[in-house]
Amino acid sequence: MSKILFGKQILFAFLFTSFFSNRAQNADSLQLRKLYDYYLSQSRCYSNLEYLCKKIGGRISGSHEAEQAVKWAKQAMYAAGADTVILQPCMVPHWVRGKKEVCNYSIQGKLKSVSCVALGSSVGTGAKGLKAKVVEVKSFEELERLGEKEVKGKIVFYNVFFEQKHVRTGQAYGEAVKYRGRGASIAAKYGAIAVLVRSMTSVADDEPHTGNMNYDTSISKTKIPALAIGFTSADNLLKDLNQNKNLEVYLETHCETLPDVLSYNVIGQINGTEKPNEFIITGGHLDSWDNGEGAHDDGAGIVQSIEVLAAFKSLGILPKHSIRAVAFMNEENGLAGGKVYAKDAKLKGEKHLAALETDAGGYTPRGFGVDTTNGLYTKVLSWKHLFTPYYVDRISEGGGGADISELDKAGVPCIGFEPDTQRYFDIHHTAADTFDKINKRELEMGAGGIGALLYLIDMYY
Amino acid sequence: MSKILFGKQILFAFLFTSFFSNRAQNADSLQLRKLYDYYLSQSRCYSNLEYLCKKIGGRISGSHEAEQAVKWAKQAMYAAGADTVILQPCMVPHWVRGKKEVCNYSIQGKLKSVSCVALGSSVGTGAKGLKAKVVEVKSFEELERLGEKEVKGKIVFYNVFFEQKHVRTGQAYGEAVKYRGRGASIAAKYGAIAVLVRSMTSVADDEPHTGNMNYDTSISKTKIPALAIGFTSADNLLKDLNQNKNLEVYLETHCETLPDVLSYNVIGQINGTEKPNEFIITGGHLDSWDNGEGAHDDGAGIVQSIEVLAAFKSLGILPKHSIRAVAFMNEENGLAGGKVYAKDAKLKGEKHLAALETDAGGYTPRGFGVDTTNGLYTKVLSWKHLFTPYYVDRISEGGGGADISELDKAGVPCIGFEPDTQRYFDIHHTAADTFDKINKRELEMGAGGIGALLYLIDMYY
Repeated sequence: MSKILFGKQILFAFLFTSFFSNRAQNADSLQLRKLYDYYLSQSRCYSNLEYLCKKIGGRISGSHEAEQAVKWAKQAMYAAGADTVILQPCMVPHWVRGKKEVCNYSIQGKLKSVSCVALGSSVGTGAKGLKAKVVEVKSFEELERLGEKEVKGKIVFYNVFFEQKHVRTGQAYGEAVKYRGRGASIAAKYGAIAVLVRSMTSVADDEPHTGNMNYDTSISKTKIPALAIGFTSADNLLKDLNQNKNLEVYLETHCETLPDVLSYNVIGQINGTEKPNEFIITGGHLDSWDNGEGAHDDGAGIVQSIEVLAAFKSLGILPKHSIRAVAFMNEENGLAGGKVYAKDAKLKGEKHLAALETDAGGYTPRGFGVDTTNGLYTKVLSWKHLFTPYYVDRISEGGGGADISELDKAGVPCIGFEPDTQRYFDIHHTAADTFDKINKRELEMGAGGIGALLYLIDMYY
Repeated sequence: MSKILFGKQILFAFLFTSFFSNRAQNADSLQLRKLYDYYLSQSRCYSNLEYLCKKIGGRISGSHEAEQAVKWAKQAMYAAGADTVILQPCMVPHWVRGKKEVCNYSIQGKLKSVSCVALGSSVGTGAKGLKAKVVEVKSFEELERLGEKEVKGKIVFYNVFFEQKHVRTGQAYGEAVKYRGRGASIAAKYGAIAVLVRSMTSVADDEPHTGNMNYDTSISKTKIPALAIGFTSADNLLKDLNQNKNLEVYLETHCETLPDVLSYNVIGQINGTEKPNEFIITGGHLDSWDNGEGAHDDGAGIVQSIEVLAAFKSLGILPKHSIRAVAFMNEENGLAGGKVYAKDAKLKGEKHLAALETDAGGYTPRGFGVDTTNGLYTKVLSWKHLFTPYYVDRISEGGGGADISELDKAGVPCIGFEPDTQRYFDIHHTAADTFDKINKRELEMGAGGIGALLYLIDMYY
């Protein structure tokens, strides 16, 4: 009898659990549907991004535009319904491009202009420019083989293509970007006087792609100018070099690094009702390169993050934990904002349950990369079916983003929002990263996925 | 002992099967990787589509451009490596737009121009045009309630919006398109003299979207002109109607239907090595609306289908069954090509193992909708893991396309290729469906998915 009772108890417990877990799942489905209804019909992502791109525009750290962006983000977060908005001070580098760059050469009596852009953090040539022969290399190994004998006094041209066979364009970028990052110092080691880099791009147009570079003084103490050139310009230069190895390229860049400037992360917060001192954050970076409008990189991530606050407020969702939208400053050339945020969090003993970064463009969503730390990956995977109707159910292990990398190191489980990547590197870091490249529904579908994930983390993690 | 032997036999059989099934799976993975390598680095999808869009352009059935497209497709299929190319005759309607449409009205002494386009198959107003008051309705039910008393002698304006809350934009289209299709006949029943339809669009611009309409003589014998107007023009008209219910809209369209014309489906074939009389086909439609370049609709599907032949030839894949790329004629306003293909297949007793249609744009792939007929869905689902690395692993039940709908009815298991849909209805049937809206990698990733699926069907189904 007792055995039977025991059996019945199990059955009852099972039915009880199953009843409530089904109810919870149905409730979650309904709540997600409500969230998406909001995102697809009422959200202000798109109009917010239009303002950021069109009224403020490119906003490199230390610039007047970055300062305007800070003010705008504060106002936009309050408008979204933040209980409080914190301006978190951080000192940022102040690199300026100066006058438009010049790159050209003469061949068969004709002056050919090369589409170019100085790399971020690069020194300039100054007004008198520089002129030298060009040595093309396809790898650091090739450069090393050539050595000082072939390189000294010349311009090194890193002619490295994106590997188009990769399904994820980020992988091609990851492989090629080292030439942009360390190329100048390694070339300087062999006596080069400047470097040109084939643009890091998946499309064969002539838009030059900037991006940050670093001088590694452990490799070379000499800082030489570094520029990216457009894909078709690189093709043309190569063709002309094959005709005339001795052609001389003229370079003129006016960029310089001024003293650091005080700037801010902008943090919009909805206070948690149960655990206000535990935080779930979503962020992107507020700064962008100066040549475009920072639409996909990363205005999209900023407005998607702000929209989480608006969605929660609009639907009357009262989160248990405090929810933050963080507009990080200085991702592009220093990560000052991300470092300060993590340091402050540690100092204040703020417990971060999870940190999400959206910095891969405002494209149609695919899913999330999720850290396995503290069981977050397993948890998010258990919600996969809830994301399936919204096409954002590709849950992979490991994720994050540059701005939250310091939190990651401190043990916070991190998440990277992963939109489709096919178009990202067509316009990444170019003058073409403008608002017209944003599709409203794609932006909103991504924002919806982020809002839904934060909702579930707050409820169940 | 015999029991143990039996156990060993099972174990052996299991190991044997598992060994060979693992080997087969690895071989499949490798073959798919080779296919994608081809598609992402060597395929001619993109340059083929450029030719079709830029050198031929919009190619409505019966037009000179459609005729050129037939010639081009034949040549492109041979260039791709088809063993044979068949021109399959079909009679197609020959509707012509004529001179640019006019739609305008005066309010407060100002002439306002309305962005408009005649619907396909519509009669024209002729050179003298027509002028009448406008009655706005949001549904057929509302029109019915108003009845002849309110409608007679007027222009009916179907002011129906896309439901933005749908995740799949096709669902919104499916709900709204009936006003374009049957709106004229239903309005004519109540004595309307013309209809305007708010463009079927997911974006709030002023590009008017055409598309086919039909006169249903069982509803009304009277054929009245039908036009689509741009989204913002529709907004403006509404605002002005609210100010002045009596404003009169002037319409002038010059479209007419000429006698049917002889045209062709173009069928490129690689002969099967084992079962040449069994066919696996992939197709799209060669005709397009006249106002754009038919880039996403459906040049993309045409070049993706042709590329299957090129990929197989290039990699030396010798299919067991005959593989066909079918460029169907007249999907947009009649389906003549699809009907003739199915009828001929029946007449000739051609067994079709599977038919795939790609007619949802050249966007980044998501997966396939697959018929459950003859176990095809289950089979494709068993390959899901092979598609996962290529982001085309969303396998849903039920699929196909307009061109293969007659094959579907005849019992052929059908498949619809499903790219991401967020951007499709921004430009669908507009002057903006042009080559510059195509992203090379997205187009190729989709083509790769189609090639991979046909390869697996040929091998294992």
